[in-house]
Amino acid sequence: MVSGVCTSGRAPQRATVPVVNSADTPALLADVSPLPTGLDRRLREQLTFIVEIDRLKTVLRASPLAAADRRENDAEHSWHLAMMVLLLAEYADRPIDVGHTVALVLVHDLVEVYAGDTPLYDAAARVGQAAREQAAADRLFALLPADQGTRLRALWEEFEARMTPEAMFAKALDRLQPVLLNWMSDGGTWRTYGAPAVDLLTALWLHNPQHTAPRGALWVHNATGSGWSAADQLQPLVEPQPSHR
Amino acid sequence: MVSGVCTSGRAPQRATVPVVNSADTPALLADVSPLPTGLDRRLREQLTFIVEIDRLKTVLRASPLAAADRRENDAEHSWHLAMMVLLLAEYADRPIDVGHTVALVLVHDLVEVYAGDTPLYDAAARVGQAAREQAAADRLFALLPADQGTRLRALWEEFEARMTPEAMFAKALDRLQPVLLNWMSDGGTWRTYGAPAVDLLTALWLHNPQHTAPRGALWVHNATGSGWSAADQLQPLVEPQPSHR
Repeated sequence: MVSGVCTSGRAPQRATVPVVNSADTPALLADVSPLPTGLDRRLREQLTFIVEIDRLKTVLRASPLAAADRRENDAEHSWHLAMMVLLLAEYADRPIDVGHTVALVLVHDLVEVYAGDTPLYDAAARVGQAAREQAAADRLFALLPADQGTRLRALWEEFEARMTPEAMFAKALDRLQPVLLNWMSDGGTWRTYGAPAVDLLTALWLHNPQHTAPRGALWVHNATGSGWSAADQLQPLVEPQPSHR
Repeated sequence: MVSGVCTSGRAPQRATVPVVNSADTPALLADVSPLPTGLDRRLREQLTFIVEIDRLKTVLRASPLAAADRRENDAEHSWHLAMMVLLLAEYADRPIDVGHTVALVLVHDLVEVYAGDTPLYDAAARVGQAAREQAAADRLFALLPADQGTRLRALWEEFEARMTPEAMFAKALDRLQPVLLNWMSDGGTWRTYGAPAVDLLTALWLHNPQHTAPRGALWVHNATGSGWSAADQLQPLVEPQPSHR
């Protein structure tokens, strides 16, 4: 996968830091450009991690932006999801802790700094995804002080497991956000992948272990425990119409 | 200011949506590409806002990324700050509510979807900034249902006023994050603007009404109420050394 590098504007020119979208182990950014001396070990580990996750801004997703002709990256996506949690929490079908849900979406894609983004409809790319992401998590979260590494990894694993109300709602928003962006750009990923609606929905259904009662074309469905209470209204979004504008 | 548009990858091609970095009033993205019919008014307003703030991903800041040769945008910056709140809250010099502080940083740059980014060291750009941002806030937050528009605007105003412990710590991180990025890219903004250290520090001091006891070269200073309790360790960051790597 390519990097989302732009060279416009006043950014200083320097050597490009390799963007890694596999389980390879690149040098840490804080090894390439060392932090100041004199930092406590704990603060140094925290800043090393904070600098390293800058890579998330270079991991491109399949989705197009609504506001520009380019693909979205994981950092932008994570911010957008966090805003959606703040604004849409009322649609959770069980009570959720909003702050905790925000934390889940902020960290949910972090392992992609090493493992890369895996588009939902790209079957080939999905091979080995779980192993890549576990290896990435082993490397990434170990950069932090142990207490914080454990806490962030637990957040990521909670999101992945989708068993808590917060994780289920976070995942529902993680589905809704690219659907919105696709809608705003006349089909976006759906056109790119040529995914017929039925394959898309099958993929979404397989991807959701809590989905015990598939209901037709509902993407964020309203089966018990899906995480979303107003799904019927959003059904038109999953059936993009080329002439919708 | 230019847009951060990339055309690489598989993003679908379509008409470019104008990027607005002034107080002009562009068409809403949800007017350009209408949302589905059949949405409740409240959900429609929420989704209209959620789509509109996609523009934040096109507002470029002065800071370079650590991980690639391009400038950072506001959405990436906001996500990075939110991660820093989760990881660095222990350095707040007064107790803070972490979830509330995360909310502050998520929304702190939203008005720049219309008002644009104003670099700290760019005196010319700062003329009229407050009026531009108020006009942008009037337009942007009015898109939401009234209760949510009021709540988000209050978060933005709390951040701007920097009077609560959460807002002060959020602002300290808002200062630290570009300093980190500049350090990682051998000076970055400092080189771009040719800002001598003393001007930089003066600008930072003037920008912080809580700063009652300037202490030399401390950027995130440790005066009472500055929001940050471990600033001495970070002092080297404000004096970039071209040969630090």
